[in-house]
Amino acid sequence: MAGTPVWSVDPRTGKQRERVAVEATPREVDQAVRAAHAARGALADRAARIAFLRAAADLLDASVTAVVETADAETALGAGRLTGELGRTTYQLRAVADAVEDGSYLDVRIDRADPALAPPRPELRRYKVPLGVVAVYAASNFPLAFSVPGGDTASALGAGCPVVVKAHPDHPATSELCASLLRRAAEATGLPADVVSVVQGFDAGLELVRHPLVTAAGFTGSVRGGRALFDAAAARPVPIPFHGELGSLNPVVVTPAAAAERAEEIGTGLAGSVTLGVGQFCVKPGLVLVPEGADGDALVGALVKALGETEPGVLLDHRMRENFIAGVRERAALPGVTAPVTPGPGGAHTVAAGCLTVAARGLLAEPEAYGTLLEECFGPVTVLVRYADQGEAAAVLALLPGNLTATLQLSAAECAGAAPEDTTPESAPAARLIGEVTRLAGRVVVNGWPTGVAVAPAQHHGGPYPASTSTSTSVGGTAIERWLRPVAYQSVPDPLLPPELREANPLGLPRLVTGTPAS
Amino acid sequence: MAGTPVWSVDPRTGKQRERVAVEATPREVDQAVRAAHAARGALADRAARIAFLRAAADLLDASVTAVVETADAETALGAGRLTGELGRTTYQLRAVADAVEDGSYLDVRIDRADPALAPPRPELRRYKVPLGVVAVYAASNFPLAFSVPGGDTASALGAGCPVVVKAHPDHPATSELCASLLRRAAEATGLPADVVSVVQGFDAGLELVRHPLVTAAGFTGSVRGGRALFDAAAARPVPIPFHGELGSLNPVVVTPAAAAERAEEIGTGLAGSVTLGVGQFCVKPGLVLVPEGADGDALVGALVKALGETEPGVLLDHRMRENFIAGVRERAALPGVTAPVTPGPGGAHTVAAGCLTVAARGLLAEPEAYGTLLEECFGPVTVLVRYADQGEAAAVLALLPGNLTATLQLSAAECAGAAPEDTTPESAPAARLIGEVTRLAGRVVVNGWPTGVAVAPAQHHGGPYPASTSTSTSVGGTAIERWLRPVAYQSVPDPLLPPELREANPLGLPRLVTGTPAS
Repeated sequence: MAGTPVWSVDPRTGKQRERVAVEATPREVDQAVRAAHAARGALADRAARIAFLRAAADLLDASVTAVVETADAETALGAGRLTGELGRTTYQLRAVADAVEDGSYLDVRIDRADPALAPPRPELRRYKVPLGVVAVYAASNFPLAFSVPGGDTASALGAGCPVVVKAHPDHPATSELCASLLRRAAEATGLPADVVSVVQGFDAGLELVRHPLVTAAGFTGSVRGGRALFDAAAARPVPIPFHGELGSLNPVVVTPAAAAERAEEIGTGLAGSVTLGVGQFCVKPGLVLVPEGADGDALVGALVKALGETEPGVLLDHRMRENFIAGVRERAALPGVTAPVTPGPGGAHTVAAGCLTVAARGLLAEPEAYGTLLEECFGPVTVLVRYADQGEAAAVLALLPGNLTATLQLSAAECAGAAPEDTTPESAPAARLIGEVTRLAGRVVVNGWPTGVAVAPAQHHGGPYPASTSTSTSVGGTAIERWLRPVAYQSVPDPLLPPELREANPLGLPRLVTGTPAS
Repeated sequence: MAGTPVWSVDPRTGKQRERVAVEATPREVDQAVRAAHAARGALADRAARIAFLRAAADLLDASVTAVVETADAETALGAGRLTGELGRTTYQLRAVADAVEDGSYLDVRIDRADPALAPPRPELRRYKVPLGVVAVYAASNFPLAFSVPGGDTASALGAGCPVVVKAHPDHPATSELCASLLRRAAEATGLPADVVSVVQGFDAGLELVRHPLVTAAGFTGSVRGGRALFDAAAARPVPIPFHGELGSLNPVVVTPAAAAERAEEIGTGLAGSVTLGVGQFCVKPGLVLVPEGADGDALVGALVKALGETEPGVLLDHRMRENFIAGVRERAALPGVTAPVTPGPGGAHTVAAGCLTVAARGLLAEPEAYGTLLEECFGPVTVLVRYADQGEAAAVLALLPGNLTATLQLSAAECAGAAPEDTTPESAPAARLIGEVTRLAGRVVVNGWPTGVAVAPAQHHGGPYPASTSTSTSVGGTAIERWLRPVAYQSVPDPLLPPELREANPLGLPRLVTGTPAS
């Protein structure tokens, strides 16, 4: 093979497994985008698109052994987790197919002509059309569900947009394998294989976002990488929408009443959420407000015990391991920061989970000095901020940037909306807290943990910057909206309208007729 | 008054009328944004917001004489047009109030918990929350409907976002007057006046888009000004959505069959659309594909006659008049371009309407040389491109940037979907043309004119860049979506939920329950 080789690496040993591809040259990126662009007409066929998404899900399911083996060999995430992730991925592909069949995502609106209005209103019929070729940037931490066959790809294909995926360097072999399965599924349902393809290499990613025929991008990754691509998308002669998920601290607030009621349960649950997937989730709780005093101490004790019992784990690659160790060391060195269980190197290729603590008082006195504590640290660590009263907790929350999630641990009485000193639900402390964290996040969780993002119609996976660079979601029923734009047809004769907008409604789409739901 | 004065100028004479304000200093911009930010809690009251929007509409209607007089004195648009524009403006405010009352814009979705799923699904409840303070940049050409009390302001207030408007220098007195009426309406309905305010001055506009508490911006204006603000919004430490409408050629295609059937009607109608509001509409048809031959000649003849009979008009300011005269001169000097009615200076303060013609053949041979013909020229002029066959017409369309609108003039047989040589509607030339212009525009008009943008649920006023910088609309039922972001609540106890999401649905909102419409 000519060109810069792309190696699949085993993170359990740091050793190269196999050479699976070469980095795409600018010419190859151009070819991939042009081929995708040429395939967009075929993808406009709604029935073919639905069949393709379902065939892709079936083929991935049928290939579970090979996919999970390949993904585990280059990510060390384990067969159990990866089998679950593949299930989530194929569920997602089928959910998008169902959404395309349902058609409500097209938001069809028809306004009848009204000559009695001043000025008279012409007939208007509106739906949404696909934007064109979409660039998808695969995430490191979900080699399936947020990578080649993941949610961005599924929703873009469902919208009718061909996809070129920039593979993540942590799982090039999995990416090539999944791409070949998706392309086979396309051909099996009569679509050109080029409705989806993969390019490898850092430079290829930049070429992609700058390509004139690329019309939108989806990204899941770091603040640094995501912001560079966002900036490139905005600086184009023709700027394009960039839907990026960049970083999130995912704050948790434990109220004194909750700590009094469930210290051990909360501490143990927190440890599980922090160490799930070796702490490599975008929604890992990275900052936890724990009350001072005995109940909070009990919570920390339970957390420390559970973390101490957690086996060291393998991170996705060696650079991440180094960054994790350095990031934890930098934070632990701050004045007043303690490490009841020191996170850091485990064995030669593993890391141990842990936590850091700091007093809210100290952090609030000098917020700039503690800036790194308010930044995401990828890996199995969380920062506990011990607070004296609600004022301190609110002041710490006010320092935080945007987040994907915010979690509250509340007592039973707080959940009932009652506070001892105040019986109006609206002004109860728990309701106030809900309001405070709503400003900070795209998903608010009560008495659960943010890890585990359900694929469901009402899901929202996004949040104020840097959680995401737009107001959209990358998971759930509305993710497809990112890849569409509305078009209104004014006084267009029925035979010339797209079938979606014809009076007889041949596709049976839900629609809003002069403001009223109808079908 | 200290500071740089802001003058209201009479464009009919070029004379200063009165000093109406001073340019806002950075400190004053900061104060306006902070005051707006502080008012956002009050604006969260849905009933107060609805009452306020309706009171604002009533107060503007009651002030019609003063508003129209002031606006006419500094824009020369005439009392008839401005009275109509005020009606459109108050209709828009009331339509937003109705939309807030209806509540479907909140897109409430509830997914019931499903423990039988693998993994089990928690309960999710999602709606949309306001982004925060919105910056609105007023347009020159609509001193009311796209300025202080216009669609951006109305939809942002309806969403629950306080607004700071950067007034347009062409109508500072109208801006101050309208702002005072809106602020009075706010106070009359129990809201702080600072839910809406106005700042004047170019630098104030830049300060505004960079202010940390500004969360989104709406803009209607030129490509140059809009792109500078878009770039500033994207370059912020925390980037914000920038919904800008920058420029549009609004192509028209006249088929040979349409020209054969209605040459005179089309020529006369085109003249009316080009000269409406002295050619100062964002949706003015700026490029018209007219077939070569006798029918096309007859169309041009009718257009030329109607343009020649049009009285010279006053543009919004003297800089625009100079730009129009220079822009027309530059285009007319291109080889092969003729001017059957020369657009340019009328009297000392007016301009005369006109048109330019060029052969598609020449333009296609050297597209770069004719680049200015493919750029919007603000004012009463349009460019006719004479084409020999459908291939030439398609090739010219392929050169165009994005547009707000595209218009087709078709024959009766083409409207019926029938073509002499082909009876399948899908492949008929007219259906093909619809597909070609759908790629180019946000609204497609058949046998009408793009000027006149109905305020209606299905309207879409936006389009591929540079028509707009996002996929959103600034007019119609979905304009409110620009100022909101979704939030999902996971397992949040009913008493702690916002009223919009409570199980009993106290506000009676339409909602999607596990994918099915319910209320």
